[in-house]
Amino acid sequence: MTERNTADTDVSATKTLKVALLGAGNVGSQVARILLDDADTLAARTGARLELAGIAVRNVDAPREVELPRELYTTDASALVRGADIVIELMGGLEPARTLILEAIEHGATVVTGNKALLAVDGPALYEKADAAGVQLSYEAAVAGAIPILRPITDSLAGDKITRVMGIVNGTTNFILDAMDSTGAEFSDALAEATRLGYAEADPTADIEGHDAAAKGAILASLAFHTRFALEDVHCEGITGVTAGDIASAKEAGYVIKLLAIAEKIQKTDDAGLPTSGVSVRVHPTLIPREHPLGAVRGAFNAVFVEAENAGELMFYGAGAGGSPTASAIMGDVVSAARRLVLGGPGRTDSTIEVLPVLPIKAVATRYYIGMDAADEPGVLSKIAALFAENGVSIETMRQTVHREPGEVEGPGSAELRIVTHRAGEAALAATVEAINGLDIINSITSVLRVEGV
Amino acid sequence: MTERNTADTDVSATKTLKVALLGAGNVGSQVARILLDDADTLAARTGARLELAGIAVRNVDAPREVELPRELYTTDASALVRGADIVIELMGGLEPARTLILEAIEHGATVVTGNKALLAVDGPALYEKADAAGVQLSYEAAVAGAIPILRPITDSLAGDKITRVMGIVNGTTNFILDAMDSTGAEFSDALAEATRLGYAEADPTADIEGHDAAAKGAILASLAFHTRFALEDVHCEGITGVTAGDIASAKEAGYVIKLLAIAEKIQKTDDAGLPTSGVSVRVHPTLIPREHPLGAVRGAFNAVFVEAENAGELMFYGAGAGGSPTASAIMGDVVSAARRLVLGGPGRTDSTIEVLPVLPIKAVATRYYIGMDAADEPGVLSKIAALFAENGVSIETMRQTVHREPGEVEGPGSAELRIVTHRAGEAALAATVEAINGLDIINSITSVLRVEGV
Repeated sequence: MTERNTADTDVSATKTLKVALLGAGNVGSQVARILLDDADTLAARTGARLELAGIAVRNVDAPREVELPRELYTTDASALVRGADIVIELMGGLEPARTLILEAIEHGATVVTGNKALLAVDGPALYEKADAAGVQLSYEAAVAGAIPILRPITDSLAGDKITRVMGIVNGTTNFILDAMDSTGAEFSDALAEATRLGYAEADPTADIEGHDAAAKGAILASLAFHTRFALEDVHCEGITGVTAGDIASAKEAGYVIKLLAIAEKIQKTDDAGLPTSGVSVRVHPTLIPREHPLGAVRGAFNAVFVEAENAGELMFYGAGAGGSPTASAIMGDVVSAARRLVLGGPGRTDSTIEVLPVLPIKAVATRYYIGMDAADEPGVLSKIAALFAENGVSIETMRQTVHREPGEVEGPGSAELRIVTHRAGEAALAATVEAINGLDIINSITSVLRVEGV
Repeated sequence: MTERNTADTDVSATKTLKVALLGAGNVGSQVARILLDDADTLAARTGARLELAGIAVRNVDAPREVELPRELYTTDASALVRGADIVIELMGGLEPARTLILEAIEHGATVVTGNKALLAVDGPALYEKADAAGVQLSYEAAVAGAIPILRPITDSLAGDKITRVMGIVNGTTNFILDAMDSTGAEFSDALAEATRLGYAEADPTADIEGHDAAAKGAILASLAFHTRFALEDVHCEGITGVTAGDIASAKEAGYVIKLLAIAEKIQKTDDAGLPTSGVSVRVHPTLIPREHPLGAVRGAFNAVFVEAENAGELMFYGAGAGGSPTASAIMGDVVSAARRLVLGGPGRTDSTIEVLPVLPIKAVATRYYIGMDAADEPGVLSKIAALFAENGVSIETMRQTVHREPGEVEGPGSAELRIVTHRAGEAALAATVEAINGLDIINSITSVLRVEGV
């Protein structure tokens, strides 16, 4: 037994806390390894020995990458939960994770989970149950893997007012977009490469359609704006429609395309009849300037950019997934939970003191990038510019590249037009795009993407 | 006296906590503004009304930028402290800040300070006094301004093992180095520009000599390695010797020069007789690859890069100074303190469970960049390479640029040599440099800089 050698309180590490681990996958096995290997360090840091009481799995005899004492495995998750002080849920999915977490709450156990899918769907109900029972429910690992982001938002920025959060919170899509940006590959080739290297799952839908990012966006928005948001509150667009041409055009104009989860407090919108204050939570491919801190986030890394009234701009960067990094975040929550259990204090970390309405994507004003293929003839630019003006959308920059056959000086060539607008409402932009689409000089509108960070 | 409210969902803001503010400068006035303007929000977030009991200043009638009710000002700091639940010390300097903090601790008040100079000198003694009195002493604002870095290190990474911390923790020097990098300016011109724009103080010594970064390095090292380090434990080199030539050469080789505060756990050194495990805390100009996350930190921004066994690489980025950003960090500590006073719990955030020796700079092994001016004659490269090999320093890359008068094809021109080594001990490198200096084919050694992040 280790004894604590600091004397600020009379706590010795003779206390034991029973830890139940649910799930022995990529993250769970690393958490088990840390609990066993670092037992003495953890005891010194918390004032209690963290005893791994058992690991609930579906099949005790399944082959596993990390070697752990066989007697730790059990298929009776419920019994394990009932005897635990701290329950670490790493099974993923909705059931039986939800039932077991509710059981842990009922028994007064502290719960640590990394299950963003469950939190996005059932978070509000689970938080309320935990609050009512006076039980702590922590989930730092659910957003941006190893990056400490929830605690800074809830604690460090507790005396400030967050105005906007923009996160690269899905490593798979960042890897794909980064590969497209650096190699010029098309989406399908970059996805194949990501799958080959293990950055994308066999069924990548949840990642590439933005659902995973949306779940994290709901959690970030809830903490940043002290209101509970669920998955259905998030407007979600994935990256399957992003082409090599979009990436190349963005690059030429000094931008990089990232899939961002954005949660933004909006005080006013320019459209009549819409709420004048609320929160927009959305996930979509976004152009950001290459020199923006988020622009430098490469490969499968994650980063969350936070804007607050007093703090200004902050960014938190790190590994967004992986067994050990995610286990680090889980263990941060476990150590905090253990300290609270030893030293006392309810350690309430999130508060829902405001009830802000969710704004529809139509209430959002942002800049837009519009790429289009037009006929190369006199008057095209002025016709298009007139349509923008009629719809109240102000153009910031307009670039034109003319494509002609070699040797051809003039003639029926086509022109690639790329327009970046000033801030405009979603509705005004949609009307503009519709009007442009109706022009016979327009061959096609190749992309409409939002621009942030300028 | 405050009473503990055990039901965490049943907190009403009828409780009042008296807040004493010491100092009404740039940061103090912003803290006062937030306490007054955001009183309702703060009450909702903490469960208590934070009553600004008074602001201790030297001269009640001095002109101030932020308009605050005149009756808040007092010159009797001591009386103010004795009646407070929370004392915010923003006077800076050693005295009377130290005496007033000790007085606050004796009276059982929670202390929040941003005084890195005091903490670097007297931190260990103050922490012990606070521990012994069971009083919380928080100082998030002391390192990297608005960036939440101390709480992530002490709480979020509490279940992990930090191996290295590298921080751009001084905005003035980062502004100067960034200006030199982007404009090619010499140090003195960049410093003059920084002074003109208000990024450097009239007496910039503490910044440009690295003392301010060293104070922050001592705090970061203490928290990261659970051992108390003071200013005298930090090896410190400033940026006054960095030339436009160094910056240009580094740039050409794909590096950027940053002043880094580095705290590193070293398990072994290659020099016999030196401790085989301990911590090196040092501040010096450092070459880092331009694509490294720290390489993208521009202007007066700060960032702290953390490497941990499980989490891998993390970075925290934001404003390192300024009234409002620093006030944001102060208020984060104040809200946490108020929550603890309302909800209970000692909220111990740092622990000194290890006693690691401080290693001298000679125990550090790193990569080096050496620039030298040599005669342009056959055999120079091999002579120099031989000296590196004799001293056990392995060369990674060697670049040579020959300078000749226009029209001159061969002759007594000089060659600029730039060498980047593999990891080598400080002693071996020093011996190599001395040996090279003794060669008659060497005109001068123009720079010796450390390289990190590769």
